[in-house]
Amino acid sequence: MTDEVAGREARLDPSPPRGMRDVLPDEVALRDWALAQILAVYRHHGFVRIETPAVESLRLLLHSEGGENEKLIFKILKRGEKLAAAGNPEEMADLGLRFDLTVPLVRYYAHNQARLPQPLKAIQIGPVWRAERPQQGRYRQFTQCDIDILGVGSEVAEIELILATTEALGALGLKDLTVRLNDRRLLSAMVVHCGFDPARSGSVFIALDKLDKVDRREVAAELRAARHPASAIDRLLDLLASSTTPAALRSLLGSAAEGAVWEGLQRVLDTVEAHAAGRFRLIFDATLVRGMGYYTGPIFEIQHGDDTSSIAGGGRYDRLIGKFIGRDVPATGFSIGFERVIGILMERGPVADVDAERVALVFEETTLGPVLGLARELREQGKHVLLETRAKRRGKQLQDLETRGFRRIGVIGPDGSVEWREPRAGGAGGTRA
Amino acid sequence: MTDEVAGREARLDPSPPRGMRDVLPDEVALRDWALAQILAVYRHHGFVRIETPAVESLRLLLHSEGGENEKLIFKILKRGEKLAAAGNPEEMADLGLRFDLTVPLVRYYAHNQARLPQPLKAIQIGPVWRAERPQQGRYRQFTQCDIDILGVGSEVAEIELILATTEALGALGLKDLTVRLNDRRLLSAMVVHCGFDPARSGSVFIALDKLDKVDRREVAAELRAARHPASAIDRLLDLLASSTTPAALRSLLGSAAEGAVWEGLQRVLDTVEAHAAGRFRLIFDATLVRGMGYYTGPIFEIQHGDDTSSIAGGGRYDRLIGKFIGRDVPATGFSIGFERVIGILMERGPVADVDAERVALVFEETTLGPVLGLARELREQGKHVLLETRAKRRGKQLQDLETRGFRRIGVIGPDGSVEWREPRAGGAGGTRA
Repeated sequence: MTDEVAGREARLDPSPPRGMRDVLPDEVALRDWALAQILAVYRHHGFVRIETPAVESLRLLLHSEGGENEKLIFKILKRGEKLAAAGNPEEMADLGLRFDLTVPLVRYYAHNQARLPQPLKAIQIGPVWRAERPQQGRYRQFTQCDIDILGVGSEVAEIELILATTEALGALGLKDLTVRLNDRRLLSAMVVHCGFDPARSGSVFIALDKLDKVDRREVAAELRAARHPASAIDRLLDLLASSTTPAALRSLLGSAAEGAVWEGLQRVLDTVEAHAAGRFRLIFDATLVRGMGYYTGPIFEIQHGDDTSSIAGGGRYDRLIGKFIGRDVPATGFSIGFERVIGILMERGPVADVDAERVALVFEETTLGPVLGLARELREQGKHVLLETRAKRRGKQLQDLETRGFRRIGVIGPDGSVEWREPRAGGAGGTRA
Repeated sequence: MTDEVAGREARLDPSPPRGMRDVLPDEVALRDWALAQILAVYRHHGFVRIETPAVESLRLLLHSEGGENEKLIFKILKRGEKLAAAGNPEEMADLGLRFDLTVPLVRYYAHNQARLPQPLKAIQIGPVWRAERPQQGRYRQFTQCDIDILGVGSEVAEIELILATTEALGALGLKDLTVRLNDRRLLSAMVVHCGFDPARSGSVFIALDKLDKVDRREVAAELRAARHPASAIDRLLDLLASSTTPAALRSLLGSAAEGAVWEGLQRVLDTVEAHAAGRFRLIFDATLVRGMGYYTGPIFEIQHGDDTSSIAGGGRYDRLIGKFIGRDVPATGFSIGFERVIGILMERGPVADVDAERVALVFEETTLGPVLGLARELREQGKHVLLETRAKRRGKQLQDLETRGFRRIGVIGPDGSVEWREPRAGGAGGTRA
């Protein structure tokens, strides 16, 4: 008894950890529905789902060209003797939580290659973790939803990914979609062509990446602050301003980029457009960068409506698998920013009730037997049946059930008779069944 | 180039971390199917799914009466200044990966109470982590699948949980199920009645818990080794041997346990049995203990076939929520050991193809346009359509596709014509569509 009182005095804080969140039932129902839609589209496109552990070795996570994300890893403390043997904090962890699904996929492919279909068309859905500064609408654990094609070097892969991903977003009711397309090789060619130091192209890309959010003067200022040549900066910004189509950019760049890059890009644009069926717009955007360091070819993002942030992004990363298996395997992926998508769907108001009819049965403890029989019958008819014992405040109980969306509420009397209330039919009274 | 070669020389190990595992596509398909079945049954029983983060505060995880599991927590290293300020390994972590779904549920309930239905009937499905010594078939990350009823003090909760969980297992095709039922209060009463020191009942429970795996002499030896009185040990083992029904045990225990405990147990036995509909057996088992420290009332487990390990387990924990909100809320839960269930289903051989018809289209790069159109048509008819460009070894490619379960394979010629091969129809040749 003393223990119990002491335990209550030192009450535990029930908040989730900083930057993490609890998901309420209505949102979980929406998330489950959305994932089921996406998964169904991807399966119809011949993709198969795979799963990797949430925890990976730090050695892997830190050598993946994951860019900024590598700084955001949640590291897991070693245990027992290994921890005791660690000299400083750097040595105290050898595992971490994955920060994306691409790095684990590449490890998975390298490890399980012989037992996987070739080429592999993989679906991955799961949580990832990044220790970002918590801010409105962004959390330290969030769900990603990726498809990747491993083993296809031609643009067929990009075309399939773009068609499947736009179809999946369409299945969620998102209609106003713009797909932006670029190629990392063009970005590199532009940087060289304009006179930047190729060894410092990373900082040029990072500045360019902001062109969709800030104006070109701010980007120019950032590039000057990074001590890039003023002439190169002017040239690059002029080049981008006049490059609304691949053909326009090609004529300006001349032979700075290989013909195959242009032809590939044009093939993706033409083929995807021919099959877009009005579901989305596809545009070439020479300013599109994508943050991750591992991209090697075409890159793409999807925007919804007027929102400048993307709801999906991806690209080709032909050299990541080689780090594991010693020979390159061509690879392309497209990731849906699931949390952003859910944010948009939540704003649209309550979820359409996609479930079966929902019935609540309110009963007295003494009538449990007959109620269980009735519940079973109704469930066999496909209905969702909630059982609740009668509360002291019966009126409030019935009102709560109506608010929660129960279309039929049966109140079982002490004699086992059922009084059916049908809120949607109007009126306070019920009908006797 | 030099970098690339260097990267290849120091090839990364592609194995998953020790004790973790990759899941191959066929198993993921089975897991997804099984979870969908379970989720559908639980939703039909009026439960709603909730989600909590994988990461919780160590303070929570270490004060949850989680028993042995508390020793198996993967702890997460603090970051930045907080890490720098930590003096010793004990202070270097303040977060950990959850080791079950019950502790997070209780925190969730305390934090979100006002926005949740009362009583709450919650479904939780998700991974948990325990740093156990890796062994055959047991992993450090595994999925749990729980339902809990919070806010119902009567045995209606136990009855609903047992009926819903056995129905969910039945939906997976598991027929030979035995539900074992006991009550923690009876265990305590037996221990006192037989003359053990009540303050040391924990070690008695731990020894008793092994009675389903080892014989009573070994259990007696363990109790003697723990220096419990020999007379109490003999008395307890005799008591258990003659307690195959609650009535038999009650007559031996006399007034050592309250009447309400016996009546509750009998009510669960009678009501559940009346609605079991031949789907499972329900037995009283006075030796059932369950490991977790937080149980306060009825406890239960499910076994499949002759296997002595359980595939589901749960019980009442009426005092855990009080630690957060200062007043007790009655609570009961039932957790399916999802990995064990999947293990049983995998042994049964390949999954029945529950998906739509699967079609593969093999094409030349030059015919992509018409193939995309055909694929779209077939998908609109509900088929799963895989596109593959023609491989150099065409025979092997077609054979692989057949092995992977594609019932119809269309080979698209350079002129766009389709040659349909239907493996199931027998014969090596194809028919022209």
